[in-house]
Amino acid sequence: MRSLPNLVIEPIVRAALLEDLGRAGDLTTDSIIAAGAQATVQLAAREPGVIAGLPLALLAWQLVDTAISVEVHLPDGSRVAPGGVIATASGPARGLLTGERVALNFLGHLSGVATGTATIADAIAHTKARVADTRKTIPGLRALQKYAVRCGGGVNHRFGLDDAVLIKDNHIAVAGGIRPAVAAARAHAGHLVKIEVEVDSLAMLAELLAVGADVVLLDNMSPDELREAVALVAGRMVTEASGRITPATAVPIAEAGVDLISVGWLTHSARVLDIGLDHVPRP
Amino acid sequence: MRSLPNLVIEPIVRAALLEDLGRAGDLTTDSIIAAGAQATVQLAAREPGVIAGLPLALLAWQLVDTAISVEVHLPDGSRVAPGGVIATASGPARGLLTGERVALNFLGHLSGVATGTATIADAIAHTKARVADTRKTIPGLRALQKYAVRCGGGVNHRFGLDDAVLIKDNHIAVAGGIRPAVAAARAHAGHLVKIEVEVDSLAMLAELLAVGADVVLLDNMSPDELREAVALVAGRMVTEASGRITPATAVPIAEAGVDLISVGWLTHSARVLDIGLDHVPRP
Amino acid sequence: MRSLPNLVIEPIVRAALLEDLGRAGDLTTDSIIAAGAQATVQLAAREPGVIAGLPLALLAWQLVDTAISVEVHLPDGSRVAPGGVIATASGPARGLLTGERVALNFLGHLSGVATGTATIADAIAHTKARVADTRKTIPGLRALQKYAVRCGGGVNHRFGLDDAVLIKDNHIAVAGGIRPAVAAARAHAGHLVKIEVEVDSLAMLAELLAVGADVVLLDNMSPDELREAVALVAGRMVTEASGRITPATAVPIAEAGVDLISVGWLTHSARVLDIGLDHVPRP
Amino acid sequence: MRSLPNLVIEPIVRAALLEDLGRAGDLTTDSIIAAGAQATVQLAAREPGVIAGLPLALLAWQLVDTAISVEVHLPDGSRVAPGGVIATASGPARGLLTGERVALNFLGHLSGVATGTATIADAIAHTKARVADTRKTIPGLRALQKYAVRCGGGVNHRFGLDDAVLIKDNHIAVAGGIRPAVAAARAHAGHLVKIEVEVDSLAMLAELLAVGADVVLLDNMSPDELREAVALVAGRMVTEASGRITPATAVPIAEAGVDLISVGWLTHSARVLDIGLDHVPRP
Amino acid sequence: MRSLPNLVIEPIVRAALLEDLGRAGDLTTDSIIAAGAQATVQLAAREPGVIAGLPLALLAWQLVDTAISVEVHLPDGSRVAPGGVIATASGPARGLLTGERVALNFLGHLSGVATGTATIADAIAHTKARVADTRKTIPGLRALQKYAVRCGGGVNHRFGLDDAVLIKDNHIAVAGGIRPAVAAARAHAGHLVKIEVEVDSLAMLAELLAVGADVVLLDNMSPDELREAVALVAGRMVTEASGRITPATAVPIAEAGVDLISVGWLTHSARVLDIGLDHVPRP
Amino acid sequence: MRSLPNLVIEPIVRAALLEDLGRAGDLTTDSIIAAGAQATVQLAAREPGVIAGLPLALLAWQLVDTAISVEVHLPDGSRVAPGGVIATASGPARGLLTGERVALNFLGHLSGVATGTATIADAIAHTKARVADTRKTIPGLRALQKYAVRCGGGVNHRFGLDDAVLIKDNHIAVAGGIRPAVAAARAHAGHLVKIEVEVDSLAMLAELLAVGADVVLLDNMSPDELREAVALVAGRMVTEASGRITPATAVPIAEAGVDLISVGWLTHSARVLDIGLDHVPRP
Repeated sequence: MRSLPNLVIEPIVRAALLEDLGRAGDLTTDSIIAAGAQATVQLAAREPGVIAGLPLALLAWQLVDTAISVEVHLPDGSRVAPGGVIATASGPARGLLTGERVALNFLGHLSGVATGTATIADAIAHTKARVADTRKTIPGLRALQKYAVRCGGGVNHRFGLDDAVLIKDNHIAVAGGIRPAVAAARAHAGHLVKIEVEVDSLAMLAELLAVGADVVLLDNMSPDELREAVALVAGRMVTEASGRITPATAVPIAEAGVDLISVGWLTHSARVLDIGLDHVPRP
Repeated sequence: MRSLPNLVIEPIVRAALLEDLGRAGDLTTDSIIAAGAQATVQLAAREPGVIAGLPLALLAWQLVDTAISVEVHLPDGSRVAPGGVIATASGPARGLLTGERVALNFLGHLSGVATGTATIADAIAHTKARVADTRKTIPGLRALQKYAVRCGGGVNHRFGLDDAVLIKDNHIAVAGGIRPAVAAARAHAGHLVKIEVEVDSLAMLAELLAVGADVVLLDNMSPDELREAVALVAGRMVTEASGRITPATAVPIAEAGVDLISVGWLTHSARVLDIGLDHVPRP
Repeated sequence: MRSLPNLVIEPIVRAALLEDLGRAGDLTTDSIIAAGAQATVQLAAREPGVIAGLPLALLAWQLVDTAISVEVHLPDGSRVAPGGVIATASGPARGLLTGERVALNFLGHLSGVATGTATIADAIAHTKARVADTRKTIPGLRALQKYAVRCGGGVNHRFGLDDAVLIKDNHIAVAGGIRPAVAAARAHAGHLVKIEVEVDSLAMLAELLAVGADVVLLDNMSPDELREAVALVAGRMVTEASGRITPATAVPIAEAGVDLISVGWLTHSARVLDIGLDHVPRP
Repeated sequence: MRSLPNLVIEPIVRAALLEDLGRAGDLTTDSIIAAGAQATVQLAAREPGVIAGLPLALLAWQLVDTAISVEVHLPDGSRVAPGGVIATASGPARGLLTGERVALNFLGHLSGVATGTATIADAIAHTKARVADTRKTIPGLRALQKYAVRCGGGVNHRFGLDDAVLIKDNHIAVAGGIRPAVAAARAHAGHLVKIEVEVDSLAMLAELLAVGADVVLLDNMSPDELREAVALVAGRMVTEASGRITPATAVPIAEAGVDLISVGWLTHSARVLDIGLDHVPRP
Repeated sequence: MRSLPNLVIEPIVRAALLEDLGRAGDLTTDSIIAAGAQATVQLAAREPGVIAGLPLALLAWQLVDTAISVEVHLPDGSRVAPGGVIATASGPARGLLTGERVALNFLGHLSGVATGTATIADAIAHTKARVADTRKTIPGLRALQKYAVRCGGGVNHRFGLDDAVLIKDNHIAVAGGIRPAVAAARAHAGHLVKIEVEVDSLAMLAELLAVGADVVLLDNMSPDELREAVALVAGRMVTEASGRITPATAVPIAEAGVDLISVGWLTHSARVLDIGLDHVPRP
Repeated sequence: MRSLPNLVIEPIVRAALLEDLGRAGDLTTDSIIAAGAQATVQLAAREPGVIAGLPLALLAWQLVDTAISVEVHLPDGSRVAPGGVIATASGPARGLLTGERVALNFLGHLSGVATGTATIADAIAHTKARVADTRKTIPGLRALQKYAVRCGGGVNHRFGLDDAVLIKDNHIAVAGGIRPAVAAARAHAGHLVKIEVEVDSLAMLAELLAVGADVVLLDNMSPDELREAVALVAGRMVTEASGRITPATAVPIAEAGVDLISVGWLTHSARVLDIGLDHVPRP
C-alpha cells in the first residue's frame, strides 16, 4: 500500500504536539512522575474497525522522547476486533503519558475514517463500484484522511484544485455550456491532467458525450437514472456517482453499475474509532 | 462571546488554502472563468443547526482575493433553520469559486461541532449541568473546535497539558496514591493553576475529599453513583462527570446533579452541518 | 492565462527579500538616502524577449514598502523589444532601491525561462508539437518556472511525484516488465491520475501498446525512430519526445509528428533576460 | 574550503523535497517498487566539470530515508571527467528513486555554477585577477550559489544589502556627489563594514580618490580605461571590474590589472552540469 | 523539577543559531581551523550564581555538530561558586567554536534570571512568601525565563493571557466595578481557570471580598497596608503583592504575611551571570 | 538613522504576540470588555531615558487590531524625561488591552538598551571613543538590540559570524600564531570582509603589527597599557578596547585614546526602562 511521506507528516505531528504541550508542557506528569520511571503501554481497540494512523502515533511518541520504542502488532489497514492489541509502546513513563493523547487523537480519528470507508467498501463489494473520497476534508488533514481512506479499501479522488480538472455547474453556467467549458479546460490543462465533468441530468450527459471527458460525475441521480446513464456512457468515460451518499444509501447506487461512488461522509463526518491505552504492569 | 484571535486562525486558514491550491492553483476555474467576472453567492443551511466558523470562511476568501466582500446574516452562535441564509459573498467569480471548498470545510465542520454541543446543551437545560469539551480533538484544530463548543453553548475544559493539572489513574498508580499525587502537583504547579483529580469509585472519592482539589472528575459512574458522589462532595469541589457520554446517555447523567458533563464526542466524532453555496443570479 | 496564486508566491518573495536584507537591512541606502525622498524608476529590456515574473517583482516592492505603486505596461506573456519599457514604479526612493535587486532577479530569471520557451515554441510552430517542461527545475522555484514556461507558450508536464504516474526504466526493471509495472500503477493510482510510460525502443513501445497508457514518453529516439513510433501509436496514446533537447535539436524532433517535446533545458539552463532599471528624472 | 552550515541548507532541501513530493508522495515508485527492495546507484558526470552540491544531494536522500548511505568519490571542488563517478548511494530502492530528482537538481545546478566559475578562473589564471560573484542570484539559493562559486575557484562579493556598503550611481546622484555619499556611509556603517563605490569614468574615479574607500567598482570600462584606472588607484583601493562580463570577454579585462572581476553570469545564467544516475546491477 | 519540552526549545535554539550564522556561517573558524581538529572546552562560572539553561547550550552545540558531546557537572538549579566547572564539551573544534557564543548567550542570560530569583528567594526564606514571575518577559523567551525562575526557586505566574484571568484596574473601570467584572469573568472562563483580581486599596479589597476570587493582587501597597490586607482576607483568597519589587525592597513586603510576591525585575532586568568558556589543553 | 526592515521585525512581533495570546487569546479582556468599546491610552515614561522600539510596539497593536492608530510624540532615539508622553494610541479597547503587555515588553527592553548605551556614550563624549555592542545579545533579539544601541548613540560591531572575521586567542592557538591565522583568514574571506584580531598583550600587538589587520581588539588591558597600544598602532589599525566594561569603568578606558570601546553589558545585562500605559479618560 502507498505510504505517507515522513516529510509530509512530521510538521503535522509536531504542530499537534505543540498544540497540546503549550508553553509549559505536561504540568501533571512532570510534577508527579519521576524523570527516570519506565513504563509499557498497549494500544487496544474497544470496538471492531480498521486501523489507520500508526505512523503518526509512533512519530508523536518519538518526537516527545526518542527513547520510546513501539512494536506494531496490527499495521495500518488491518482489521481489529474488540480488545485487539494494536501496538505496544515502552520507554520513559513521562514521555508515554505526555504523548498519549496526541497519539490517540491521530489514531482514533484516522482509524475512524478507515473504518467508515471499509463499512461502505464491504457493503458494495459485490458490485464493480469502488468507494472514493472527496475534497470535503478536515482542514489541515487532507493527505492523512485520504491515506486513511486507502487503508479502509477506498480510492482517492483528486487531492486539490491543481491535480485534476473538475468542471461543475457554475463553471458550465459561466462558460456558456459544456462544450466551451471543456474546450477551455483542454486548452489550458497539461497533457497529464484528467478532466472530469459534473452532470445532473441525462440531457447534460448527452451534451457531454458529444464532447468527451475522462470522467463523468453523475450528481444526485437516482439508481434508475444512474443505470440509464451508465448505459449511455457505454464505457467511453469513467462513471462516478455522488451526492450525500452514506452507508445507508450506498448499495443501490453502487448496484446501478457506476465505476465509483464518491462519499464526502468518509472524511467530513467520520466518527472516532474507540481505541484506548492500557498500562501493562511491570513484572 | 469570546472570539478567536486573528493571529491564531490566520496560519490555519493559510495552510488549509495551500493544501487545496497545491503548487498550481485552481486549474479548472483559472482555465474557464474570465479574470474579470464577478459573482455573488450565498451560504445557506440545508438542515437546522448552530453556526460556527464564519470568521474562518471569511478569512479564506479574503486570503484568496482581497476584493471579495462578505455580509454576515447569521453570526457565529446563531441558530439556523433549513434554507436559512447565513452570509452573502460578492466579488471576483474566480476567487469565490477557488475559496469555496475551504470556506465550506471550516464552516461545515465547526458548525457541526456547535450543533452537536447545542443538542446536548438543550437536552440538559433543565439541570444545573453544563456540557464541556475535552482534549479529544482533531489534531491542529483544538482552538477552533473549542471555540465552536462555546458557540454551541458549551464550556471549555483545559486547552492542553500546561494550563491545568488533571491527575488520572496512571499518575495516581505511579505516585502511590491520591495524597502523594496531589501533594506533588501542589508543590510544582503555580498558584494560578487549578487541580482536578479523576476518581472512578466512591472509595477513591472519599480518599480525595481528605486531601481536596479544585475539581473532581467522576469517571464512568452510573447516575446513581454520581448522585451519591455529588452528595459526598457537598459543594467542596466542582463535580464533572465523564466517560463515553453521547446525546443518548447525557440526560440522566446531568440529572444526577453534577456541575459539568465532559463529552469527547463533541469534537472527536462531530458530523458536518450540511451547508451549501448557492450562486445568486445577477440581475 | 492561468495565473500564480498569491498565497503560493508570497512566502517565496518574502524569503528572497530576507535573503538580501539579512539582519540589518540596506546599509547603503538607509545611510545615504533621506527617508522622505521619492523616485520613479522604469523596468526596461536590454534585449528582445518574453516577459514573465512581474507579479513577483511587484510583490517584492510592495513587501518592502506598501507606498510603492507600479504601473505595468507589458504584462507577463508579452513580447518585448530592446529598450521596451515593461513597467514604471513610483514611491519612496529607499524602498525602490532596496527592493530593486530582488525584483530584477525574479523578473530576469523568469523572463529568461519564458524567452527560452518561446524560442523553441516559435521554431516548431509549423508542427503539431508543443513544448513542455520537466521536473528538472531549480529547487524552490518549480511553480514559478512552470508558470514562466506557460508565459513563453509552453505547456506543463507534471508538477511533482504525486500528480501523475511516470514509469521509467528502473521501475520497469524492478517490476519485471512493462505489463506488471502498468498493472501495479493502475491498481494504486486514483481514477483522476494519468499514467505515462517511458520507452526507449520500438520493441518496448510495442510491448506498451499491448497494455496501453495515457501518454508514452519516447526517450532519446532519432527523428526517424520517432516517426515510426508515432505511426505505431496511431493516436492511441499521447506521444511525447524527450532527451537532452535544445533549441539546436528541437525542430527535426518536432517534425517527426509527436504531440509534445519535453525539454529540461527550459528550466535547468535558463539564461537571464537582461532587464535593467532606469531612474526617471523628476520634472 | 569553507563549507555550508547544515542549519542553513536543511530548510532549503526540505522545501525542495516537499515541492516534489506534493501531498501524496511518489505515486509511481510507491505503486510499483516493493517496500523492502534495495538498490545501489551511481552519480556519474556526462561531461567535464567541477562538482558542487554533494552535501545537498546527500541530505535530500537522508531526509527521504535515513537508511540510505552515500559514499563520496569526488567531493565538492573536484574536477570530474566525462563518465567520472562522483558518488555511490545504497539503500531502499524506493527512497533512492524518490529522492533522485531533487538530489540531481541541486547537484546539477550547483556544479553548473562551479563549472562556469572555473571556466573563467582558468582563463584568467595568468593574471592577478580573481573572479567574484554578485547579488544577481537565483532567489532562495544565494548562499548555495555563492558556495558553488567558491567550489569553482571564485571569491564571494557581499552576501546581501547588510554586510557591506556599495554606493552606486543612484545613491551618488541623490546624495549630491561622491563626497557626501561616502561621508554619510562612513557616519552610519560600523567599523567592521567595508565601503565600495561604483564609478564609470576616470573623472569619477579621481573624485573618489580624493575621499577614499576600501574598494572601487570600475563599471563598464574598456580594458584600456581599466588599465588607466588601475594606475590612478596605485594600490590605494582594491579594484574590481564589472559590467556584463562573460567567458568571452573576461580575459582582456582581467589582463588590465584589476584585482577582481565580478560576473553576474556565474549565477544568473548558469547552465546545468549534466550528471546522471546509473543503477548498479546487484551481483 | 519540571523540565522544558524539547519540542518547545528546539525552534528557539535553531533561530538563535541562524541569527549568528547568517548566510555564510562562521567565516573565522572555517578559514582558520582544520575540519578534523578536535577540542575540549569547559563552561566555568566567573562569579557565584544558580545555573539555568544547560539544555539550550547543549542543544545549540548538537545542532551545529552532532559529533559534539557534553558532560554536565552542575545541572540546572545547582548553585555554582566562582571558578566552578559547569560542564565539559568535547568534539570537533570548529563546531565547539561556532556554537560557543549562542550556548553562552542562553546559559548566561537564563542563569542570570535564576540567580536573581534565588537572591530574592533566599532573602525571604524566613517568611511564608514565595517569589513569582510576571508577564514582563523578554519577547520570545517567556517559557525559558519562567523555567529559569523555577530553577532559581521561584514559582510561575500565568504564562499568557489565556491560562488565567487577571482583572486589572482598566477592566474594572470599564465593567463598572469589581462585582460586574468578576461576574463576567466567571460567566465566560471555564471551570479550570483561576480568577485573580488586582486591588490597590483596602476599600477595593473589601469590595472584592464580598464577591470572592481565587487570588488577590495587592498592588503597590506598603508593608503596613499589606499586613492589614492579609488580615482582612483571612485565608479566603491567595494573597499576592506586587509593584516594582526589587531585591532591595522585597523583604519587608514578604514579611507582611502575603503568600506571594511577584517581581517583574526577575525577567525584565536580569543581569547576565558571567560564565566563560575555557579550552582544556589536550594531553 | 538607519531603521529596522519591517520584514525582519514582523515575524518577531507575531511570535511575541502568539506567546502571550496562547491558544485561547485574552480571556480577561474578551470576557469583560464589550467588543465595540473604544479607548485612548498614553505610553509615558516613569524615569528619564532614551526611547527605542516604538515600531515594534506599534506593529504589535496593528497585528492585534488594524483599527488601532498610534500617534508618536517622541520617536526612537529621543530623550524622554520622567512623565514624558511617548505616544498616544486610540481604538478598540479590547485590542489596546490585549496588545499592551507585548508592546510594553518590546518598548521597555529596547529603551533600556538605548538608555544604557546613552549613559556610556554621554560619559565618554569628551573622548574620541565611541561605544559599540557585541554578539553577547539576548537570543532572537540581536537585530533589535543592535538597533537600540544605535538609538542610544552607539555603533554596531559585527552582526554575526559571517559578516566579519574576528580572530581570537583560540583561533591563534590552533593556527600556530597570529601570522598563519591572519594569512588563512585573508585567503578565505572575500574582499568586502574586514579582519579584526584580538590581542591581550603588547607583545601580541607587536606581532600583529607586523602582519596588519583592519581592526585590533585590545582585550582586558589597563588604561595605561591601552595608551601604549594606541601609540604603537599609530593609526595603522582601528583600535577597539574590550573586557567586562561597564558604565563604572568606561571613562578611563575611553580616555586612553582608543577608537572604540565594545561593551557586552549594553545587551546582556540591560535593565528595563520603566514605561507605563495610562488610560486617557474620554471626554
